Amino acid sequence: MNGPDFARRDAEDPLAALREHFDLPPDVVYLDGNSLGALPRNVAARIERTVLNEWGTDLVAGWNRHDWIGLPERVGERIAPLLGAEPGQVLCCDSISVNLFKLLSAALALKPGRPVILSEAGNFPTDLYMAEGLQTLLGPGRCELRRLPADRVLEGLDEDVAVLMLTHVDFRTGHRHNMQAITRAAHAAGALVLWDLAHSAGVMPLSLDDSGADLAVGCGYKYLNGGPGAPAFLYVAKRHQQAAGQPLAGWMGHSRPFAFAPDYEPAGGIRRYLAGTPGILGMAAMDAALDVFEGVSMEAVRRKSLALTRCFIEALDALGLPGVRLLTPRDGPSRGSQVSLAHRDGYAVVQAMIERRVIADFREPDIMRFGFSPLYNRFADVQLASETLASVLADGAYREARFRQRARVT
Amino acid sequence: MNGPDFARRDAEDPLAALREHFDLPPDVVYLDGNSLGALPRNVAARIERTVLNEWGTDLVAGWNRHDWIGLPERVGERIAPLLGAEPGQVLCCDSISVNLFKLLSAALALKPGRPVILSEAGNFPTDLYMAEGLQTLLGPGRCELRRLPADRVLEGLDEDVAVLMLTHVDFRTGHRHNMQAITRAAHAAGALVLWDLAHSAGVMPLSLDDSGADLAVGCGYKYLNGGPGAPAFLYVAKRHQQAAGQPLAGWMGHSRPFAFAPDYEPAGGIRRYLAGTPGILGMAAMDAALDVFEGVSMEAVRRKSLALTRCFIEALDALGLPGVRLLTPRDGPSRGSQVSLAHRDGYAVVQAMIERRVIADFREPDIMRFGFSPLYNRFADVQLASETLASVLADGAYREARFRQRARVT
Repeated sequence: MNGPDFARRDAEDPLAALREHFDLPPDVVYLDGNSLGALPRNVAARIERTVLNEWGTDLVAGWNRHDWIGLPERVGERIAPLLGAEPGQVLCCDSISVNLFKLLSAALALKPGRPVILSEAGNFPTDLYMAEGLQTLLGPGRCELRRLPADRVLEGLDEDVAVLMLTHVDFRTGHRHNMQAITRAAHAAGALVLWDLAHSAGVMPLSLDDSGADLAVGCGYKYLNGGPGAPAFLYVAKRHQQAAGQPLAGWMGHSRPFAFAPDYEPAGGIRRYLAGTPGILGMAAMDAALDVFEGVSMEAVRRKSLALTRCFIEALDALGLPGVRLLTPRDGPSRGSQVSLAHRDGYAVVQAMIERRVIADFREPDIMRFGFSPLYNRFADVQLASETLASVLADGAYREARFRQRARVT
Repeated sequence: MNGPDFARRDAEDPLAALREHFDLPPDVVYLDGNSLGALPRNVAARIERTVLNEWGTDLVAGWNRHDWIGLPERVGERIAPLLGAEPGQVLCCDSISVNLFKLLSAALALKPGRPVILSEAGNFPTDLYMAEGLQTLLGPGRCELRRLPADRVLEGLDEDVAVLMLTHVDFRTGHRHNMQAITRAAHAAGALVLWDLAHSAGVMPLSLDDSGADLAVGCGYKYLNGGPGAPAFLYVAKRHQQAAGQPLAGWMGHSRPFAFAPDYEPAGGIRRYLAGTPGILGMAAMDAALDVFEGVSMEAVRRKSLALTRCFIEALDALGLPGVRLLTPRDGPSRGSQVSLAHRDGYAVVQAMIERRVIADFREPDIMRFGFSPLYNRFADVQLASETLASVLADGAYREARFRQRARVT
């Protein structure tokens, strides 16, 4: 692996032109799209239109005239193909945390007599916290969070488990689960599966319907590029929608929200998983961000994603960096779209890289994360990132005290 | 009451200049700020800056550099004075519906052995629906929604009531409760009070702290002008924060969200009522919208609000409109900032008025609502609205079939 090879790969990349859809600072190598996706160029104009021409001009009539009221469904239907979901099963709304609460409650209701939510001990914290919150609210006997190490989680599948809640791609290591096999195992044990697709949606083909998945949630602000704190999404397989209510029974999920009826009566389909009034500015940005995906093959995105991460791993191998340990699987099918490296001074190393305009991030206790977004990352980014990492480690810049000062968000 | 009098009142209005802060269509009389507030002029520039200069340029570093992570608290602290709340008790986050679920759960936890949520049968539907959702989730004996007619609701206060949940200003009639007296009555019965301030915040002085209120929620998109689906707010009196957890235990409410600790440990103060990642675009718009309130006396806002609604009522009296019945109290202290009129063809009448550029709205079964926002409404609007209503009724325009076709949102 050498310089000219990276350049050749960029020249031959069928997705290279997509980078033009993003407004990236010119001198930055951005490898943190797994935390916050870059800004799609069309978002600013869409937001301006929503503010000035919709809200400012049409005022309250915007709810009908611009179908703001339909945005959660409409945006959901645009996300659905990225998830391998037929229409009528995806909504864009609320945060992942809030959506997890809805779907975990629904799962318990679908499996009476099975109080257990099974998950990995190392799952993303908010997933575990929301399950804990539900456990505390419902009390023992009605909801119990069971956590097992990643390599033993399937051993926890017994007749008490209502739902297996897993994150498809691990936020720390980038390890990717086999959705099909795990879903099958859970179903064989009589349990449902709830997939958190935060690190999967928009960066690989997914097959919720085909794999038989029951429930899913995911994130708008990572590989979907919806902007900071963009609304999240949820998926409920059609076969469960009629039977599964959810406790955040707000007016937007009512069968006739503007009848102002005294009693809650859930909408017939996926809309029953809405709660309150949708945030239109965030939703409009999300909608605009999805334009980038129009006509893009997710298989091609996955091919490029795997090539980028493999190139990065191979470049690191060639450099033989001291004190750096690869946490991400080398095996393609087991890898998401990030490369994680352990280094005892990981936080400071990442800060020193950021000063040299290569943006990655850090996760406790010692993990440097490099996320690759095939819509805008180039093989040249792989080259610059690996070289910058090598130089920061070689010249010891990261040892400076200022790189050790923790920011509020890391 | 006649033309010149309206003009004189506008000329003498100490708040008249505030209208310049809003971007209103020039030929429209907008009396629906109680549904969606008008666009403050500075919002578009703030959103553009957030999109291009913060997200686009600083990417993930925006969380620290622009303190996105602190927005729910910072915006909450700007709302707090409008509610009569000392610092550390208000957050801007999620929707009213989701916030109600958090605070109703907290109320039940604060009052063990008292399973009842007491409310008015005519409360805003989402308030009742969220309580129903909690009731269904927890089951009988642990949560029970008790609904009584408005004039008998205090009779429902007994030793089973954990929390009295009321909307301060009724969305149908514009009737305003006496916050002080009702809070006292609830406390005398050992219950907490949760106020929904959707139709109060930003249009009158409030005194949550002084009245001894326990919990409150409210809306960002009505009189606070935060935009369609703007984030909502919540209030938890300091004395309850340590004892009251909440079940939507997302990572943003954790004491150290970026430690990624396996167990949920709620933040010490008001932040524990956060759930998921805040939507930054909506939050930035909300923040900008609050600039209008800087240096504005809420007592002056209330004086103008009462004058506007009184003028409108008096103008209608003078016109003696057939088939129109006033639903809103004439008594100032019992009135919010809207005037509601019943008419059997209310929906069609409102549509015919909208065609004549006077924007009001309709609520089932027969209610025409006219909301007055003292920051931008003029006495001239009162005049035009009353004259337009009179002419629509007189010429029978509203009888045309096209005015009867219901829109999706009404």
